[in-house]
Amino acid sequence: MDPERYEFLKRDFKQGFPAWVGYEVDRVGEGEFETSLKLEPHHLQQDGLAHAGVMATMADHSAGYAAFTLAGEGMRILSVEFKVNFMRPAKGPRLICRARVIKPGRKIVVAESEVFSKDNGQETLCTKATVTLMQVPAGQLDNNS
Amino acid sequence: MDPERYEFLKRDFKQGFPAWVGYEVDRVGEGEFETSLKLEPHHLQQDGLAHAGVMATMADHSAGYAAFTLAGEGMRILSVEFKVNFMRPAKGPRLICRARVIKPGRKIVVAESEVFSKDNGQETLCTKATVTLMQVPAGQLDNNS
Amino acid sequence: MDPERYEFLKRDFKQGFPAWVGYEVDRVGEGEFETSLKLEPHHLQQDGLAHAGVMATMADHSAGYAAFTLAGEGMRILSVEFKVNFMRPAKGPRLICRARVIKPGRKIVVAESEVFSKDNGQETLCTKATVTLMQVPAGQLDNNS
Amino acid sequence: MDPERYEFLKRDFKQGFPAWVGYEVDRVGEGEFETSLKLEPHHLQQDGLAHAGVMATMADHSAGYAAFTLAGEGMRILSVEFKVNFMRPAKGPRLICRARVIKPGRKIVVAESEVFSKDNGQETLCTKATVTLMQVPAGQLDNNS
Repeated sequence: MDPERYEFLKRDFKQGFPAWVGYEVDRVGEGEFETSLKLEPHHLQQDGLAHAGVMATMADHSAGYAAFTLAGEGMRILSVEFKVNFMRPAKGPRLICRARVIKPGRKIVVAESEVFSKDNGQETLCTKATVTLMQVPAGQLDNNS
Repeated sequence: MDPERYEFLKRDFKQGFPAWVGYEVDRVGEGEFETSLKLEPHHLQQDGLAHAGVMATMADHSAGYAAFTLAGEGMRILSVEFKVNFMRPAKGPRLICRARVIKPGRKIVVAESEVFSKDNGQETLCTKATVTLMQVPAGQLDNNS
Repeated sequence: MDPERYEFLKRDFKQGFPAWVGYEVDRVGEGEFETSLKLEPHHLQQDGLAHAGVMATMADHSAGYAAFTLAGEGMRILSVEFKVNFMRPAKGPRLICRARVIKPGRKIVVAESEVFSKDNGQETLCTKATVTLMQVPAGQLDNNS
Repeated sequence: MDPERYEFLKRDFKQGFPAWVGYEVDRVGEGEFETSLKLEPHHLQQDGLAHAGVMATMADHSAGYAAFTLAGEGMRILSVEFKVNFMRPAKGPRLICRARVIKPGRKIVVAESEVFSKDNGQETLCTKATVTLMQVPAGQLDNNS
């Protein structure tokens, strides 16, 4: 990937809520986006595990950027819907998310995100999401204009 | 609802990630949970709208507590999976979430959450989620023990 | 609703697979579609209950026609995705499906379908689906052209 | 796999609605189930493509049997919910479905199904589903007893 494009995607990913939560961009490929998070106490639920919302947000946002790597010029990506299964508790201390496009498209794009708990180099698949996205012209804020 | 139980649920709801994001409990009923959030810059995406993850987390966590109002003694609630549709951009300045159980159960519980953007007393439905939950004994951290 | 339009929708609904399974159109409104099925042995699974696929197909197809009642001239409706929860066993002898649009749109339309088991005038909610649909020009077969 | 167990699973798969629609079992492995369907006019929608319900039923039923290959003795599998994305039109003339368990469990099992359209040895991924299932004792008809 063009280094300038890579730097743009990394910067663009880290805005607003996702920047505040603390997700980092680790790797970007065509139709692929890998991110991570060092779990802090404010990311957890009452048992000291990653909160479902921390993983769902990571899955959604990473999937959006996996789709964005394939977007046409002047186009942006909106989430239409997603579905996420919580399969194992995520203890951390790090979360890794790997998102990839499974169906590119000029309008509808489908991506999947897997969230792993990583400890001492060992990864455990905890959460998997399917995300339906839409390509729209950059100025457009919803999926119907 | 018993006032002591109500205070317990309000306190229990506000821990870890949801407390840090800032969700508030507004109303609790049998099988129902209503929450709100005053949108701050760190809740938004690049266009100044509520981030999908802020609404998804709100929908999931509120649904879990709607289920928790019906839980048996010594039981807790885990999210098995959820699906969420983003239907309209949420500008705020407030988000309201109304979650309710549509299928109670001793094991599997199904709830729905609607997230509204509220401005000057006017509410707009922006996001709707279906959440599958599971009742497990309080000490249990996953859905398989 | 215009009687000619109503007759067209009823006929159009009953083609191919749904006609072969035997779903009937009972009522049509703006953004609403109600259908039914008399359960026969070939609709069941091994315990004599309606098969999940019979209810999922009914939910999807009825939702598509609820969306179609609102479609622009020369437009058709495609299913982008759906999610369905099986909440109670459906014994019949009849199934009723009520689908309604919860978010109209020029492109993306969101509908919900509830499937009830009906016995002696008593209805039990068994299955609920959320269906994401797309309006496309009538000649178009996928969601990306 | 034990040949007797294989024959039992093949027979058990083909009952009621799925037998009537005509799905065939092609291959069974531990946590895996592969099925196929020769498309006939009564499996199609108005454009001569496989109906969404034909693919959704195939995805759900095959996923259930992928889970059943791992079930404990005296246990059965129920569908709790599923989500399915329709990504490309399925022209056939054959459909192939490959289902596999991505999270085994004593209670909750998660499986994925991919449905391919197959023509002249060439396979095209058309539909992908995530299915949440539950293991229950054989006599039990719902997910809550």
